[in-house]
Amino acid sequence: MPLEFKILKTDSKTSARIGKVVTEHGEFSTPVFMPVATKGAVKTLEPVELKEISTEIILSNTYHMFLRPGIEIIERFGGLHNFMRWDGPILTDSGGYQIFSQKDLCKISDKGVKFKSYIDGTEYFLTPENIIQIQETYGSDIIMPLDFPASYPSTSTQTEESTKITLDWLKRSINCHPLKGALFAITQGGFETTAREHFIYELNNLDLSKIYGFAIGGMSLNEPKEITWKIVETTCNLITKDKPRYLMGVGTPQDIVKAVSLGIDMFDCILPTRLGRNSWAFTNQGVVKLKNSVYKNDDSPVDPECGCSVCKTYSRAYIRHLFNIEEILPLKLLSYHNIYFYHNLIKRIRESISRGTFETDFLKKQIEFDVKLT
Amino acid sequence: MPLEFKILKTDSKTSARIGKVVTEHGEFSTPVFMPVATKGAVKTLEPVELKEISTEIILSNTYHMFLRPGIEIIERFGGLHNFMRWDGPILTDSGGYQIFSQKDLCKISDKGVKFKSYIDGTEYFLTPENIIQIQETYGSDIIMPLDFPASYPSTSTQTEESTKITLDWLKRSINCHPLKGALFAITQGGFETTAREHFIYELNNLDLSKIYGFAIGGMSLNEPKEITWKIVETTCNLITKDKPRYLMGVGTPQDIVKAVSLGIDMFDCILPTRLGRNSWAFTNQGVVKLKNSVYKNDDSPVDPECGCSVCKTYSRAYIRHLFNIEEILPLKLLSYHNIYFYHNLIKRIRESISRGTFETDFLKKQIEFDVKLT
Repeated sequence: MPLEFKILKTDSKTSARIGKVVTEHGEFSTPVFMPVATKGAVKTLEPVELKEISTEIILSNTYHMFLRPGIEIIERFGGLHNFMRWDGPILTDSGGYQIFSQKDLCKISDKGVKFKSYIDGTEYFLTPENIIQIQETYGSDIIMPLDFPASYPSTSTQTEESTKITLDWLKRSINCHPLKGALFAITQGGFETTAREHFIYELNNLDLSKIYGFAIGGMSLNEPKEITWKIVETTCNLITKDKPRYLMGVGTPQDIVKAVSLGIDMFDCILPTRLGRNSWAFTNQGVVKLKNSVYKNDDSPVDPECGCSVCKTYSRAYIRHLFNIEEILPLKLLSYHNIYFYHNLIKRIRESISRGTFETDFLKKQIEFDVKLT
Repeated sequence: MPLEFKILKTDSKTSARIGKVVTEHGEFSTPVFMPVATKGAVKTLEPVELKEISTEIILSNTYHMFLRPGIEIIERFGGLHNFMRWDGPILTDSGGYQIFSQKDLCKISDKGVKFKSYIDGTEYFLTPENIIQIQETYGSDIIMPLDFPASYPSTSTQTEESTKITLDWLKRSINCHPLKGALFAITQGGFETTAREHFIYELNNLDLSKIYGFAIGGMSLNEPKEITWKIVETTCNLITKDKPRYLMGVGTPQDIVKAVSLGIDMFDCILPTRLGRNSWAFTNQGVVKLKNSVYKNDDSPVDPECGCSVCKTYSRAYIRHLFNIEEILPLKLLSYHNIYFYHNLIKRIRESISRGTFETDFLKKQIEFDVKLT
């Protein structure tokens, strides 16, 4: 068994649950937030720093690491863990979303996808089977199949195509069994509940013993939030309860609270690092943009309620100064703090589910989040 | 006494010596290498990381910190140490070199220098007395007076002007006594030994009890190395032995070895951080440029003989990959390693002077250093 999942408690008032996932590279508690190391590094941070802030599992991208540094190099190092020097669990996204978001560079056929490298134009052809094999070579603990998301908004033809191709490729991925890593299924079906229901109906007819978790793909593509939550709710209600559910690419702190309440266990998002690099910091009092001159004399920590080493060491004024002089250091300082913030939020969510107070502690409170990227 | 200096041993075959400097913010051994935090941060590195690699004293720049964040903010924080969260000794350069290198933006008068901010054009007027007061406000452990270096090559008129103005300003700086920080004298005099001798003759007639160390300024301005060493030798022979000597802005590992042999105790240089950010790594086998594709499969550490945590953790291939994808992390990794390399070199120099083997260990060996910045 490449992955074991145990539900420790289910919330009585919502669909939230807490659990534990065990992989060959260690275990993690759910709900979990996975920092994003798309190209083999969580931007600005070392593995030892991720450990300091309680990161338990990171996410990398099969397609990006396929282009650079290439499979041969990762294979030579015995896999991604050793190459990156991260010894905890790694989930690798297939890169379906990334490949197909460059429409002009790719072409789908029955067999797979032909695409040109955005770096040097080299042409590649990859099949669902290749994508799985590559992740096996990487030594990924959690393997994502090649999927074909619909873009938002989507015509019914596009939705059908996304559903059909993703389902077909999922079947072929399952046929790669047995695998060292744990294969998840990515559910697609555009933005219509009926198409999503159809997808899961078909999915539930497959050999689920070969699927270790379910991901909800194709969300967070600028669709209205009501659509997102309707689809998450529908999906969680229709898939088996005993496997982890992963909402791909989501989201803000509020999104995470909402999604946990609907039964989601796993999250990844570039927000904490990307916003951090743009001088935005998450705090328990809302989001602040530290580059603003209003902070130039502010001797308080980034977040007075935060226990991370950045908040225990530096002032807002100093970090503001570092951004102002275009120093590199503050990009790291806020990436560190923001990921800590996310981990801490998830930890408090887990604790409240454990206590049975999740609904009152989180759902009934407004969490401040007003990011206007400028 | 804001600064005490004790020579622990003088080399019998060269002018090298080892010593200890005590300041209000702690002590450091000499020879010493001071990482450069021009604008209030050693680029990419946190104070805690500098401590890890045995940094004992850092250098900052009065002029740059005067422009940003400005004195008021640093004063509000009770000085630079608390603002930056570095609790060890700080030497602040005056910024004379930086002000006068922007010739179009500054104008010298008897009283001081009028200059325009390179950031927003704001006009400022600073005197030698202001520069001292600002460093007192910063809480600098070692204070550098405003100086006026000659550029290379220099006419005899320019050399005379540099000598005259720097001497005049030095006298006015001495008159600011008593100071909380330890005032150093910066020796100038262009690139002619006679002008340098004249400067030191005048200097030696001043009240040396108010001067805690001597800096050699105006070097490393593209003059031939023979000129540099001739001036360093002349200067060291003419100034009193019982105070630390600081060769400003120098240099490569070979430069440091040579300068130590001539009696220099203190160094600062941007090379380890600037080269690091450009993927160059110092190693005991010479300098390597890790971005080069020759390292793409190299599973050895940056420097197999190095004990720093970067070398104990990562491969050349991984760091090369990070540079290749334009990640931010490797800028820090190589800055960290390169400063460690410099500290380690200086430590080995100190040990060899202590053993009495400095000449055989270092001077008679060729140290590899072939950086062609590309």
